[in-house]
Amino acid sequence: MFRVTQAVAVALSVSASVLLSAAVVAQTTLTGPVEFHTFEVPTIRVTPVATGLANPFAFAFRKNGDILITERYTGKLRIIREGILQEADISGVPAVYSEVFRAGLMSIALHPDDDAIVYMTYTKPIAVAGEPEQTVALVRARLQENRLTDVQEIFTAKGLDTAIAGSTLLFTPDKKLFMSVGGAYVFAGTGEFAQDPALHYGKLLRLNDDGTAVADNPFVADGSYLPEVYSVGHRNQLGLAINPTTGELWASENGPQGGDEVNIINPGANYGWPLVSSSRQYRGDWVSSVKQQAGYEDPELLWWPSIAVSAIMFYGGDQFPEWQGNLFVGSMVMGRIPGTGHLERVVFNSRGQEIRRETLLREIGQRLRDVQQGPDGFIYVLMDEEDGSLLRIEPVREAEC
Amino acid sequence: MFRVTQAVAVALSVSASVLLSAAVVAQTTLTGPVEFHTFEVPTIRVTPVATGLANPFAFAFRKNGDILITERYTGKLRIIREGILQEADISGVPAVYSEVFRAGLMSIALHPDDDAIVYMTYTKPIAVAGEPEQTVALVRARLQENRLTDVQEIFTAKGLDTAIAGSTLLFTPDKKLFMSVGGAYVFAGTGEFAQDPALHYGKLLRLNDDGTAVADNPFVADGSYLPEVYSVGHRNQLGLAINPTTGELWASENGPQGGDEVNIINPGANYGWPLVSSSRQYRGDWVSSVKQQAGYEDPELLWWPSIAVSAIMFYGGDQFPEWQGNLFVGSMVMGRIPGTGHLERVVFNSRGQEIRRETLLREIGQRLRDVQQGPDGFIYVLMDEEDGSLLRIEPVREAEC
Repeated sequence: MFRVTQAVAVALSVSASVLLSAAVVAQTTLTGPVEFHTFEVPTIRVTPVATGLANPFAFAFRKNGDILITERYTGKLRIIREGILQEADISGVPAVYSEVFRAGLMSIALHPDDDAIVYMTYTKPIAVAGEPEQTVALVRARLQENRLTDVQEIFTAKGLDTAIAGSTLLFTPDKKLFMSVGGAYVFAGTGEFAQDPALHYGKLLRLNDDGTAVADNPFVADGSYLPEVYSVGHRNQLGLAINPTTGELWASENGPQGGDEVNIINPGANYGWPLVSSSRQYRGDWVSSVKQQAGYEDPELLWWPSIAVSAIMFYGGDQFPEWQGNLFVGSMVMGRIPGTGHLERVVFNSRGQEIRRETLLREIGQRLRDVQQGPDGFIYVLMDEEDGSLLRIEPVREAEC
Repeated sequence: MFRVTQAVAVALSVSASVLLSAAVVAQTTLTGPVEFHTFEVPTIRVTPVATGLANPFAFAFRKNGDILITERYTGKLRIIREGILQEADISGVPAVYSEVFRAGLMSIALHPDDDAIVYMTYTKPIAVAGEPEQTVALVRARLQENRLTDVQEIFTAKGLDTAIAGSTLLFTPDKKLFMSVGGAYVFAGTGEFAQDPALHYGKLLRLNDDGTAVADNPFVADGSYLPEVYSVGHRNQLGLAINPTTGELWASENGPQGGDEVNIINPGANYGWPLVSSSRQYRGDWVSSVKQQAGYEDPELLWWPSIAVSAIMFYGGDQFPEWQGNLFVGSMVMGRIPGTGHLERVVFNSRGQEIRRETLLREIGQRLRDVQQGPDGFIYVLMDEEDGSLLRIEPVREAEC
């Protein structure tokens, strides 16, 4: 029955040891390139760019080729220079609260005009009536060699972070910064934060590059929500991307058990959480008996079972012509079974409507936290594990065989 | 990089050749036992019981140990005796229409009082105004050695089968026979059949063991639907099972692109298709802008992306104590990517509410058409491929290692 031959493995250009483990073990840390077959691109090669990252959360490409990576629990900002992950981390990052699952250093975004200006979100330790608490803050700093200077906290979210909010950042070319603040969890008793006009939690915010509210934000005029708020009724958004075809802002949002969503964000719109939802609580109850209601936006994409959606990315490079315009969605865990994280590819028709989804990298089975298109047109994914890694995905074309 | 060792493979009791292919090739026909790791049962062994089945659709266990299997396109009824698939098929099966995808011989059920009495559904060739057409019919016969005798067509569905309906059968202990008739496809212009009072298509039926309507069926009194109808507004139901904890009838139903459902069936209830639905058409449009509405039942379980749900089975045996009360759901293809069929395990809390889903047998990647608990307490699955097979799933317990 044992018939693996070296010839077969070489012919497939496959690391058989890795694939063997992948098929029988929950998750696998890659130590070298591995190839997988996919539907429209017959073979892809996945190569570790950096390993030994401690629960990395997000990364950003600089124009000079450097890659900046946040580590959640260590609170470190790491840097890859000339392809090598530097041992020394970048100094000057504010102290983060990271004592519990989900808390710590999170998203990173670089200023569109000057990519040495770094923005990061993190769980900030604060004191409320003398008791230790935490909230989500946004810091801006200048990167100089191996240190951050001019470090300024330019925004702090209103809302007590008893359940730890996720947060992500997206700069648009007009120098506005979208920032999500999650933490509206029904299981933790903070679900109603998402509809609370006095809190930033459970909202998507739109800020100027100095952290102030944008003057034409949808609630500035009537004051029905805080001026930074762009859309409301979100549970925990971890992915933001501009659809290059339509110019729309798309946002991923985690449901608890099932009901993960990607929404098309309209300014001032209400996405319903927790009043209108297709998801169940972890313990089994439906979050709401109402799954659709006038005045609340329907999701554009839904996942049942949940895949614990993380970052999202529209592919627009030259390396994968077959995948042009596809949406890539990170998955941290599927159906609440450990070792099931992967990358999902969503295909649209010419009218932008979904027609197909493919599961990629399922054999690796790690928590896929961030996905981005590199300056080289390849796809990069960040694996949020204790021994985490940044991986590059390339097509393997006939000419190479 | 090539480091598979025989020691590793033997230690894992794994057929490395099969797993290697499984990880890189779309789908794999098992030729011997393979082991997989799962979440709550650390290791399962999957063994082919019969191979060389031509697109099998359904199977049934007899008390004498025989297993009957229908083949869809050949229209053959096959039999396994003393563990061996017999070369000769059972004679006397009516001629089936099987010239197109989805048409042919389908479900099989055995009478609760006498398991030599066989019921089968099939696509029946008919003539309408002199033109060849087809519909779904139910046949009853007596199995004697290698032939069917007393073959009688005891029910024929009203509705022209332009798009080919799926159908499945379930006998309940009170000798009533549930029979689904699908074929209500929006893409084929037959979607509205599901709400049409004059047609059996897109309905779940409840029959006596002679094929007549049960007297206390919900529409017998008011005549608003045909007397055989038990519930309405279904697209294409391929799985029926009684929940052993609650006594409820559960039914799987295929959406087109996403929106696959499992519903809890209440007599006389309307499940909404195609007026109320969470699914998209294959080409991308939503089937309906209405996803929930009073008077139409919500699904109990939803799949997005679709997994092309087939049969369903509640596990109640002794071999897998960890899986007691779990629902097993067959998947023929996931997200419209070939080679992605698998088995899903759904876990419930003590109140019967879903709390977790696990994907099993994904490495095999075949169209999983039927799943049943065997008299031995093991789980049997039927793979609907040109070179199809019946597989047995067993736990591998410590004592064996």
